[in-house]
Amino acid sequence: MEKKANKTSWREKIHEIIYEADTPEGKLFDVILLITIIASILLVMLESVESIDFKYHDYLNIGEWIITIFFSIEYILRIISIKKPLKYVFSFYGIIDLLSTIPMYLTFILVGSHSLVALRALRLLRVFRILKLARYTGASEKLTLAMRASKAKISVFLFFIVIVCIILGTVMYMVEGQENGFTNIPKSIYWAIVTLTTVGFGDIAPQTPLGQLIASVIMILGYAVIAIPTGIVSSELTKSTLNEDVNTQSCPNCLKEKHKDNAIYCYNCGSVLNP
Amino acid sequence: MEKKANKTSWREKIHEIIYEADTPEGKLFDVILLITIIASILLVMLESVESIDFKYHDYLNIGEWIITIFFSIEYILRIISIKKPLKYVFSFYGIIDLLSTIPMYLTFILVGSHSLVALRALRLLRVFRILKLARYTGASEKLTLAMRASKAKISVFLFFIVIVCIILGTVMYMVEGQENGFTNIPKSIYWAIVTLTTVGFGDIAPQTPLGQLIASVIMILGYAVIAIPTGIVSSELTKSTLNEDVNTQSCPNCLKEKHKDNAIYCYNCGSVLNP
Amino acid sequence: MEKKANKTSWREKIHEIIYEADTPEGKLFDVILLITIIASILLVMLESVESIDFKYHDYLNIGEWIITIFFSIEYILRIISIKKPLKYVFSFYGIIDLLSTIPMYLTFILVGSHSLVALRALRLLRVFRILKLARYTGASEKLTLAMRASKAKISVFLFFIVIVCIILGTVMYMVEGQENGFTNIPKSIYWAIVTLTTVGFGDIAPQTPLGQLIASVIMILGYAVIAIPTGIVSSELTKSTLNEDVNTQSCPNCLKEKHKDNAIYCYNCGSVLNP
Amino acid sequence: MEKKANKTSWREKIHEIIYEADTPEGKLFDVILLITIIASILLVMLESVESIDFKYHDYLNIGEWIITIFFSIEYILRIISIKKPLKYVFSFYGIIDLLSTIPMYLTFILVGSHSLVALRALRLLRVFRILKLARYTGASEKLTLAMRASKAKISVFLFFIVIVCIILGTVMYMVEGQENGFTNIPKSIYWAIVTLTTVGFGDIAPQTPLGQLIASVIMILGYAVIAIPTGIVSSELTKSTLNEDVNTQSCPNCLKEKHKDNAIYCYNCGSVLNP
Repeated sequence: MEKKANKTSWREKIHEIIYEADTPEGKLFDVILLITIIASILLVMLESVESIDFKYHDYLNIGEWIITIFFSIEYILRIISIKKPLKYVFSFYGIIDLLSTIPMYLTFILVGSHSLVALRALRLLRVFRILKLARYTGASEKLTLAMRASKAKISVFLFFIVIVCIILGTVMYMVEGQENGFTNIPKSIYWAIVTLTTVGFGDIAPQTPLGQLIASVIMILGYAVIAIPTGIVSSELTKSTLNEDVNTQSCPNCLKEKHKDNAIYCYNCGSVLNP
Repeated sequence: MEKKANKTSWREKIHEIIYEADTPEGKLFDVILLITIIASILLVMLESVESIDFKYHDYLNIGEWIITIFFSIEYILRIISIKKPLKYVFSFYGIIDLLSTIPMYLTFILVGSHSLVALRALRLLRVFRILKLARYTGASEKLTLAMRASKAKISVFLFFIVIVCIILGTVMYMVEGQENGFTNIPKSIYWAIVTLTTVGFGDIAPQTPLGQLIASVIMILGYAVIAIPTGIVSSELTKSTLNEDVNTQSCPNCLKEKHKDNAIYCYNCGSVLNP
Repeated sequence: MEKKANKTSWREKIHEIIYEADTPEGKLFDVILLITIIASILLVMLESVESIDFKYHDYLNIGEWIITIFFSIEYILRIISIKKPLKYVFSFYGIIDLLSTIPMYLTFILVGSHSLVALRALRLLRVFRILKLARYTGASEKLTLAMRASKAKISVFLFFIVIVCIILGTVMYMVEGQENGFTNIPKSIYWAIVTLTTVGFGDIAPQTPLGQLIASVIMILGYAVIAIPTGIVSSELTKSTLNEDVNTQSCPNCLKEKHKDNAIYCYNCGSVLNP
Repeated sequence: MEKKANKTSWREKIHEIIYEADTPEGKLFDVILLITIIASILLVMLESVESIDFKYHDYLNIGEWIITIFFSIEYILRIISIKKPLKYVFSFYGIIDLLSTIPMYLTFILVGSHSLVALRALRLLRVFRILKLARYTGASEKLTLAMRASKAKISVFLFFIVIVCIILGTVMYMVEGQENGFTNIPKSIYWAIVTLTTVGFGDIAPQTPLGQLIASVIMILGYAVIAIPTGIVSSELTKSTLNEDVNTQSCPNCLKEKHKDNAIYCYNCGSVLNP
C-alpha cells in the first residue's frame, strides 16, 4: 500500500516538474527544455550546411542521439505522469513531441535516406513550446488582446490587398507579356505582391514604359496603403493604453466595473463609490 | 390573370434571391456566386500557365463553358427580374457582368485568336462583386470612414511624394547619366519612386559615389516620410475608436459630458441622466 | 494725368490677377500657370527620351518656345505690376522664375550644346509654385503643424540612424571585404542604409555566413526601428485630432483661449464662460 | 604652497572645460571635439577608398597624425584633470578614447601592415561621444522613455519574428532546395528574414510555383505584421504626448481632475485650485 502511495506521489512530483512552472524544479526543467530545443534546432541547421556536415558528421550524430534520448525520456515521463495519457498523446503538443522524437529511430529502417534531413526538421515544431513559455512574460497579453480586437479589420484589409494584387498582376501580364519575365498570370500576381508589399526582389521587373508607369502607381499606392494595418493596430493599442485610467474598482451597490479614475458616483446605479 | 400574377411573384422571388441577402436562398445564391467567381478567376490563371494549358486544355475549356453558361443565365435572370432592366444593363456591375460573359462566345467568331486570354481576364473584374460582399462584414465600415476622413491629407501627401520623385529623378538623371542605366528622365523618376517607397528592385542602381550619396539621402528621408500616411490613418482611427462607447450627452445637473453609452447616472454628480 | 491713373489701375489689375487668388481672373491665371508648368515638365521629360526626341524634335522645340514665351511674359508682368520689383527679382520664386525662362534663349549662344537638357531641367523647380498652390487646400495645414511639432524628435532619430549605419557599414566592410562588393567604407555605409531602410536593391549583398548573420540582425532591428518615426508623427497627429474638442472660444474676462468643450468656468480667472 | 593651489585650480579649470558643458569654454571644447571626431571618421572612410588613398596618401597621413595628437592630448588631459584617473581609464568611454588613439602609434611597430585600416576604424567608436552630446537636445528624452516603456512588448515581437523566420526558412529549404539558391537552412532563414522585413535583396528568390506561393503568403503577413511594433511605439508616445500638459491634481471642491498645467481655477466648478 505504502509503495503505491509513494509511486503516486513520485508521479505527482514529476507532473509538477514537467507541467507546472511554480516550483524551482519546474522552472529549472523549463529552462533545460528550452536549451535542448534551441540546441536541437541548431543541430538541424548545421547538418543542412554541407561543408559543416562533411567535417563534423560524427559529432553532429552524437548530438542528435543525445537530444533524441532526452526527448524520448521527456515524452515517456509526460505520458506516465499525467492522469489521462491519451488526451496528451492526441493533443497538439503531444503529436509535436512525438514527431520530434521519431526521426533518429527511423535511421535504422531507412538507412542512408536523404529525406531524413526533412524529417529532422520536424523537430523545429518544438519552437511552439518556446512560444508557450513567452506567455509567462505578461507583455504579450496586451499584444494578443490588441491583435484579437483588430483581427476582423486586418482580415478585410488583407482580403482587399489580395484582390488588388490579382487585378494588378493580370494587368501587368497583359502589358508586359512573356518576353519581359511576366510569363503567366500567377507569376504576375506574385510580382504584384512583391511590389505592393515593398519587398521588391527584382528577379522580375517591368521593362516597358507603360509597365513602369503602372508599377509606379502600384508602389505609391502601396506606400499609402501600408498605413492602414498600422493605423488599425495603433488605434487598438492606444485605446487599451489610455484605458489604463479606467480602474477595476466595482460599485459597492450594483457591482458594475470600469469606472473612471476620477468618478465619484457609479455611472450605473448612482450610489457613492468607495474612495 | 392568375398566370400573370404567378409570373410576377416568380420574378419577385428571383429578385429576392439574386439582389438581396436576407433569405436563406439569397445567402446561398451569394455563396454559389462567390465560388463561381473564384473558380473563374482560377481558370483564367491556370490557362495563362503554358505547361498546364498544354496538358489540360480540354478540361479547362469545359470549365470555361460551364462558368460562361452559369454567368449567362445569371445575367438574363438579373435583367428579367428587375423592374428597370436598362438601368441595370448600363450600371457599373451590369457592364462588368456582360463583359465577363462575352469572351467565350467570341471564340466562334475569332477562332484561334491569341488575344482571347486577355479578353477572358475581363472576368477578373467580377472580383468587385466579392468586394461588395465584404461590406456585409461590418468591419470594413470603420475602415472606409477613417479612409474618407484622411482622404484629403493622404492626397496632399501623395501629391508631395510625386513632386519630390520628379525632382529627385531629374537630379539622378543628371548625376548618373545614361551609362549607369538612368537612360531618360521618366526612367529616373521611376527609379526615384522605387527607392523612396523602399521597394528597391535593383534593376537600376546608382554606380557613382555622388549618386549613391543622393540615394542614401532619399532612402533615409523616405524612411522618415513613410511615417506621415501612417500617422494620418492612425490618428483618425484612434479618434473613432476612442469615441466609440462614449456619447456626447451632457448631465442635466453638472453638465459633464463623455458618459458611457450604458450609463444611467452621471459619474460626477450622481444625478439621473436623460435617457 | 488720367492716363497715368489708368496705367496704375491697369498695373493694379495685373497685380490682383497674378499675385492673388481671390478673383475669378486670379483663379483662372493660377490654373493656366499650373497647366503650363505641368506641360513644361512633361516636355523636359519627353526630350530626355531619345527615341521620342529623335521622332518629334521639331514639335517639342515649338512647345519649348511657346512655354518660354509664356514664362517670359509672366516674368515681365510680375516685375512691372509689383511695387518693389527688386525684392521679387532676388526672392526665392523670382530666381526660380528667371532660371526657368533663360534656357531656350541660351540656345542662340550655345548652339548644339548637349548640356542644354540639364539647363532645361531647371524649369522643374517651378513645381515649387504648385506646392504653393497646394497650401490652398487647407488639409496640408495640420500636416505641416504635426511635422513641425515632431521635427526635433525626427531629427534626433535620423541622426541616430546615420550613426548606426556608419558603424554597421564599417563592420560589414571588415567582415565581407572587397571581394564581396564591399569595396570601401562609404560604399558599405551606403549598403547599410539600403538595408536598414528596407529598400534592399541587391546590387551589393553579403556572401559570407557571418555577413549574412549581421545583415539579419540589421534587418530585424530596422524592422523594429521604423516604428519610431511613425510613432512620433502618429502621436502628434492624434494629439491635434483629439484636441478638436478644445474650442477656440475666449474667456469674456481674461481672454484666455483653448477651453475644453464642456468647460463652464474659465480655467484661468474662474469667471463664467459664455454658453 | 601657492603654486600647488594654482596647479589644482588649473586642473579644476581643465576638468570644467572637458567634462562639463555649462561654461562657454566647455561648450567650445565640445564643439571642437565633435568636429574632430567627424573629421577622423571622414579620414577613415576616405582611406578605405583605394583611388583616393592612392592619390592623396600623404595628405591623409598628415591628417591622421594631427587627429592622433589631438586625441592623445585630450586623453592625457582627461586623466590628469580627474580625481580618480583609474575609474576613467577602465570606463566605457575611457577604453574607447584609448583605442581610438593607439592605431597610428602602432604604425611604427607594424610597418606596412594592411590590417591597420581595420584598427583605424576603432576610431569610429568615438561617435558614441556624439550620441552623448545628442542627449543635450532634450527631444531624445521622451523617445527613450517611450522606447523603454515598449521594450518588453517589442522584445516579445522580435522573438516571435525570429521563430517565424526559422520555421519559414526551413519550409522554403525543403520546398525550393539547393538547386534554387536555398543551399542550407541558415541561408534559407536569412532569406526569410530578408523577405519578412520587406528588404528583398533578390540575391536569392524562389523559382518554383509553390515556393512563390509561400513567399507571397510571407510577404502579405509581413505587411500586416509590421503594424505591430509601430502600434506599440505609437500608443506609448501618444499616451506620453496627451498627458504632457495635463496634471493629475484634483479640484478641492468638485474633485474633477485633468486640469491644464497653467490652470488657476477649476474648469468645472470655478473654485480656486491649490497651487
